[in-house]
Amino acid sequence: MYSEKGKYPLEVCFSPLSWPLFKKDNAVIIITDIFRASTSICAAFQNKVKSIIPVSKVEESIAYKEKGFIVSGERDGKVLDCAEFGNSPFNFMEPRLQGKTVVMNTTNGTQAINLVLKGNNLVGIGAFLNLHAICNWAMAQNRPIIVFCAGWKNRFSLEDTMFAGAAVDYIIKKGKGEFHTMCDSAIASAELWKNASSNLRVHIEKAAHRHRLRKMGLDDILDYSMQLNINQCVPVLKGIEIVDIAQSVNLRFRI
Amino acid sequence: MYSEKGKYPLEVCFSPLSWPLFKKDNAVIIITDIFRASTSICAAFQNKVKSIIPVSKVEESIAYKEKGFIVSGERDGKVLDCAEFGNSPFNFMEPRLQGKTVVMNTTNGTQAINLVLKGNNLVGIGAFLNLHAICNWAMAQNRPIIVFCAGWKNRFSLEDTMFAGAAVDYIIKKGKGEFHTMCDSAIASAELWKNASSNLRVHIEKAAHRHRLRKMGLDDILDYSMQLNINQCVPVLKGIEIVDIAQSVNLRFRI
Repeated sequence: MYSEKGKYPLEVCFSPLSWPLFKKDNAVIIITDIFRASTSICAAFQNKVKSIIPVSKVEESIAYKEKGFIVSGERDGKVLDCAEFGNSPFNFMEPRLQGKTVVMNTTNGTQAINLVLKGNNLVGIGAFLNLHAICNWAMAQNRPIIVFCAGWKNRFSLEDTMFAGAAVDYIIKKGKGEFHTMCDSAIASAELWKNASSNLRVHIEKAAHRHRLRKMGLDDILDYSMQLNINQCVPVLKGIEIVDIAQSVNLRFRI
Repeated sequence: MYSEKGKYPLEVCFSPLSWPLFKKDNAVIIITDIFRASTSICAAFQNKVKSIIPVSKVEESIAYKEKGFIVSGERDGKVLDCAEFGNSPFNFMEPRLQGKTVVMNTTNGTQAINLVLKGNNLVGIGAFLNLHAICNWAMAQNRPIIVFCAGWKNRFSLEDTMFAGAAVDYIIKKGKGEFHTMCDSAIASAELWKNASSNLRVHIEKAAHRHRLRKMGLDDILDYSMQLNINQCVPVLKGIEIVDIAQSVNLRFRI
């Protein structure tokens, strides 16, 4: 499974703190923040939102609001004063958002997205909801792949790592021998995913962030977030915006 | 298993890069660098070496050599010019080292040790060889415990993480309810250890550093390093030296 035969390396970065250690030139980067940015971005595109502008500073959210944009945002699970609503995926399902651009500010997810804006890379957003869709897109790009876990305040996060493991497992299995990994983080992620995959919901109960969500009364999203492949969206960064390119992707790797 | 009942938190730090994220006041820190510093330190104390002085800069090794100390050291698996021998555990088994102090300089292990020298913490050195001995000592200190993986050049390392998982598993099981973990790194480590424990040698074949060792012709240490509890040493930092305090530890938790 982890041979060196494949042309393209597949790696996993556990947190923004580790990001400087990765060589990322001409790579595909799949960013994940299961609780909750990347899950919410998938929910938004399912609801036909036109685009998402990810920002990491509160001042940026305020500036967009002043320009008339719809602004969502949280810090540590609390809705920002300048925001119309928080980052729960359910907030992005409202029909009034269809065809609109939403500015999103989250504790971890958009911070990670903003870290990768520089460089000659392709950046996609992955969640359990669109696991196969985002991996199929990533594999079709003929580049190294890095799954980048947003984590929790620079710490390792179990739910993001399980997604990374699911992506590693799928890409190695379905990648027609074109991908390999010699990255211990990728190997560990795939092992954790194998343990969890038969009952993800039970495994996620162990995660520290799951307890944070419960304490904040935000754990209504758990069942929704843990669903696999209910969504075919391919959210990709184009300039400063995230758009869904599902209709235009090369489907060479679609199963 | 991971309840919040225990008095003392138990955490795992995956690499020196993540170290600043941990609160470490009055904690017990178990440093591990399976390939090879912590394994070699255990081998040295098995051989009745008097003490080890860990240093992280080549200039420090040279300065100690000029003072007449026995100096060992490597960088990226190659013996330092100023060193008498490299960091293989087998090098520390020579009878001439008994009763002597050895200055040790390694790529990752002593760097991690030097990071924790500041602060009001107790610092022990753990390897598979002395797993139970170091955990028994750590549990007897009535403090939070952090297992600190030296990693590989600030990256996550599978073999160090498996040791961390073995330590977490043992401390939670044998800690008389005094320890708990809400740390995702600790939970993931323990899961990886559960997968690996029935056949550690096979699991370690996946680790990236295992391949580095093979390429450098240094993989003769694998079988030795993977042995569990063949050694009762308790290497602990006292000032700038590591000494074996096995004879004086509180054995409240010894099974």
